[in-house]
Amino acid sequence: MQKYFPILDWGRTYTRQTLMNDLLAALIVTIMLIPQSLAYALLAGLPAEVGLYASIAPLVIYAVFGTARALAVGPVAVASLMTAAAVGQFTAQGTPEYLGAAVALAALSGLMLVAMGLLRLGFIANFLSHPVISGFISASGLIIAAGQVPHLLGIGAGGHTLVELARNILSGLGGINWITLAIGAPATLFLYWARSRMKGWLRARGLADLPAGVIARAAPVFAVAATTLATWGLGLHGQGVAIVGEVPQGLPVPALPPLDPELWLRLAVPALLIAIVGYVETISVAQTLAAKRRQRIDPDQELIALGAANIGSAVSGGFPVTGGFARSVVNFDAGAETPAAGAYTAVGMALATLFLTPLLFFLPKATLAATIIVAVLSLVDPGALRRTWAYSRTDFAAMAATILVTLGLGVEAGIIAGVALSLLLHLYRTSRPHVAVVGQVPGTEHFRNIDRHEVVTAPEVLTIRVDESLYFPNARFLEDTIYGAVARNPALRHVVLMCPAVNDIDTSALESLEAINAMLRDSGVALHLSEVKGPVMDRLKRSHFLEDLTGEVFLTQYDAMLRLAPDLTAQTHAATRRDTARRRTG
Amino acid sequence: MQKYFPILDWGRTYTRQTLMNDLLAALIVTIMLIPQSLAYALLAGLPAEVGLYASIAPLVIYAVFGTARALAVGPVAVASLMTAAAVGQFTAQGTPEYLGAAVALAALSGLMLVAMGLLRLGFIANFLSHPVISGFISASGLIIAAGQVPHLLGIGAGGHTLVELARNILSGLGGINWITLAIGAPATLFLYWARSRMKGWLRARGLADLPAGVIARAAPVFAVAATTLATWGLGLHGQGVAIVGEVPQGLPVPALPPLDPELWLRLAVPALLIAIVGYVETISVAQTLAAKRRQRIDPDQELIALGAANIGSAVSGGFPVTGGFARSVVNFDAGAETPAAGAYTAVGMALATLFLTPLLFFLPKATLAATIIVAVLSLVDPGALRRTWAYSRTDFAAMAATILVTLGLGVEAGIIAGVALSLLLHLYRTSRPHVAVVGQVPGTEHFRNIDRHEVVTAPEVLTIRVDESLYFPNARFLEDTIYGAVARNPALRHVVLMCPAVNDIDTSALESLEAINAMLRDSGVALHLSEVKGPVMDRLKRSHFLEDLTGEVFLTQYDAMLRLAPDLTAQTHAATRRDTARRRTG
Repeated sequence: MQKYFPILDWGRTYTRQTLMNDLLAALIVTIMLIPQSLAYALLAGLPAEVGLYASIAPLVIYAVFGTARALAVGPVAVASLMTAAAVGQFTAQGTPEYLGAAVALAALSGLMLVAMGLLRLGFIANFLSHPVISGFISASGLIIAAGQVPHLLGIGAGGHTLVELARNILSGLGGINWITLAIGAPATLFLYWARSRMKGWLRARGLADLPAGVIARAAPVFAVAATTLATWGLGLHGQGVAIVGEVPQGLPVPALPPLDPELWLRLAVPALLIAIVGYVETISVAQTLAAKRRQRIDPDQELIALGAANIGSAVSGGFPVTGGFARSVVNFDAGAETPAAGAYTAVGMALATLFLTPLLFFLPKATLAATIIVAVLSLVDPGALRRTWAYSRTDFAAMAATILVTLGLGVEAGIIAGVALSLLLHLYRTSRPHVAVVGQVPGTEHFRNIDRHEVVTAPEVLTIRVDESLYFPNARFLEDTIYGAVARNPALRHVVLMCPAVNDIDTSALESLEAINAMLRDSGVALHLSEVKGPVMDRLKRSHFLEDLTGEVFLTQYDAMLRLAPDLTAQTHAATRRDTARRRTG
Repeated sequence: MQKYFPILDWGRTYTRQTLMNDLLAALIVTIMLIPQSLAYALLAGLPAEVGLYASIAPLVIYAVFGTARALAVGPVAVASLMTAAAVGQFTAQGTPEYLGAAVALAALSGLMLVAMGLLRLGFIANFLSHPVISGFISASGLIIAAGQVPHLLGIGAGGHTLVELARNILSGLGGINWITLAIGAPATLFLYWARSRMKGWLRARGLADLPAGVIARAAPVFAVAATTLATWGLGLHGQGVAIVGEVPQGLPVPALPPLDPELWLRLAVPALLIAIVGYVETISVAQTLAAKRRQRIDPDQELIALGAANIGSAVSGGFPVTGGFARSVVNFDAGAETPAAGAYTAVGMALATLFLTPLLFFLPKATLAATIIVAVLSLVDPGALRRTWAYSRTDFAAMAATILVTLGLGVEAGIIAGVALSLLLHLYRTSRPHVAVVGQVPGTEHFRNIDRHEVVTAPEVLTIRVDESLYFPNARFLEDTIYGAVARNPALRHVVLMCPAVNDIDTSALESLEAINAMLRDSGVALHLSEVKGPVMDRLKRSHFLEDLTGEVFLTQYDAMLRLAPDLTAQTHAATRRDTARRRTG
């Protein structure tokens, strides 16, 4: 029970002090979340209240199922962009079908996450490598920021790729609404300043650390209030300034998402991508924060928790949610000790939904665009490309491909291209394990790579060390390597496969070994094994291989050489110590 | 040049003796290929002459590009079944569209193979594990055999899965044509006997080995001749015995395959599957035969050769071809020394196309069905399931899934399910590498797994040895492992990562190491590395990691422990030799 309901674990030791800490953190996160939830709903192409709904039930549900103490779940920029890209492919914004599809997307990715959690398939997320996810998030940040520029300019230009957006913005430049820009541009500058400098500025003016931090984080709320008041007071919405308009007051009514099989089938791939990308973001931030306090998270349970949160979002009329990086860090820094902080945030958001929504009528969309732009520009990490290039050309290729495809063809194509390319490179690497021909180091019983060390070998014995388990991706490579070596060495009488790094031999590799054994037998060469690990040996005994083996299985490579080339081996072992010492320092 | 045209290599040393050997092998293979090529064309749902066409140009082209000396390329059972399954999905047999699609399929899979060869993507074939390919071929053999039963019974029942076929055969049992069965059943029994016993029977009657072998392999030709004569003589085709009918006389006229983008798009997945399955079959038999004579094949060049052969097949009106197992073994046993034997076989097939086709008019389809059934039953390997079960439950699961899905849902679904499952299991394994906490073996400078050996450890030092390169599939696992170990050991002051098996650290793993280093620093624990390989160290020096590292990089694990727990380590090293000797024998 406790495994699936971590609340039973931390709930038992919940103290008054913990409550106070969690409440303070919840207050700060709520202030941050109100404008963000509205903004991300608009980014996803949805009515503003959907953002509020997605910030209530999911948080409470995560508090029940989640194992990460300080994770803040809710709408985030990248998942909102992916939602817009997925749903926008076949329905138009503002229609009931669009909303229904976004809700179904949350339900479907939630179900996928829960299924992956129950089947313990969390390891799939490992195949989203750091360069791919970093490139994807940077590129998404650029697309999101570019997508908000039309809202700042008061023009109607959309698109799902940077190319589309740039073209549409350029062609729309003639229709700029200067009043909208007069709201949006200062709001952007103010929020940017608030994010980077406001806290320091307030502290320099004598404020304590905590209030300075809270006030700096409330900057988006000030921007919302100021621009809303200005729009209302000056009647700017009559002059073309786009406003949020009527936001339904009251809590969402639970309802099933649309159960249309054709719709779900269409959403399957995007739902999977949102699930995996969201999970990777969630687990990264959760693991980082937990580690700082020497706490543990359970990656499989996190799948279940995030999945349940998404199902909860769907049932309460919300869209896909994940663990947000910035909000979680704020939650952590503000002292959140348990997932209960998330539940208190949900209470704050519910109160906002009940009482603040009428005040949002005159909120200019340009202000929300400014909030988004400032938030996502911190996602863009131009230095990552340079660092990755310096460290690994292969990883750079994967990252660059992800960025280019995401910018040029959209988020889904980008993430698929990145994963496919890194998997392909991984498979390529796996299929060619490190293999060394080894010889005896004079004066010792050690055997090392003949290409890197001065070693002694016998012409009629070839010893190959494979630094990898033997299994299907490299089974053919093994055959190829041995056949090649045998074809090149006509004097050969013995092949020894040195297996200290072989943790497993699967059926494919077993069959390759059998083929190698039969082939070597036909050529008059014996096949031997050395240093085979216990479990591998137990398994080989369950097959016919050991009976058919033309050679022997030796406990150590030294034993093998003592038998197969006794004179040379004993002589090499007795080589002067001085010789060895010289080589070691060389 | 010589790399892409191996003919320039072996052609230079072509002697009169080689010519004689190749000619004899070609004669035997031609005798075998004439009935098979007709039968496999019918299996693919194509007119009989298409099988002849696919046995001319591809063989000549393979002789130019191929590196395997004794490989016999041509129509084979499994590829023919896959062709029927792919093309039958959207066109009806006997239409020009059906033939066009089969030709396009050969062209497309040929182009894919050539592209894979030029891009050196041959390693992709490694991911078709032995259990998957073996299960797939067994299941295909069963489907093919079941699919021929209606031809033996003279009923019209089709289907692409065993379930469909069984249902259709059962419902058609009322309409059995007994004369057809009277031809087909004896033909099957005769061919089965000829395959397994005829050579021995002839030798027991005093025939030499070579003529006995040739006569036994000509058994299908006798069956074809006898049943054709009987059908013609007795006028059986008037009594419902299906015959091959008019086969156009003369060589195929080169033509482009249909260039319809929609058709090619539809055929993309089946073409890829045929390309990969065909390549795996080809390379397996080629490698086995080459190894027997200590020869080498070039797997990437084989992709190009097989691809060019398929393009040649398409241009000459044929369907997909691969290297056939049975025919290649016959070719090898008959003494073929170079790919020229294939070209001579092509001449034989061209002569057959020119002069023998009128004789095939009265050939009963039941005879061809008998040929196919006897040929494919040798593909079915029921013992493989048992052997795999005994050796590895995981591999058994992949094999059983492949068989069940192939039988139940068809060849394409079967091969995809098998590859997907084995890749998933591979990824799972890769993402959890073998990790050992190690301690010092008393009396030595060796450090071994604490779970398997009696070793000494210091409570404030944790040494973890990872038996795998550090890269993205296991980067998160590494973080997880270390965070878990640190959370469990409050006394910990030092973590040492022992890297003798780490051949690479990619960007993802580097970032994980940076995160681990930062997290440990916050907890007052230092991170050290030991036994880092030279190339890995060179690369780490190109990043900031070594500057930020809280601990040190030690040349050996013993050096690390001498520094971090000096008293304990020196004392343990000085432990009595007697102690060590006792443990070694234990």
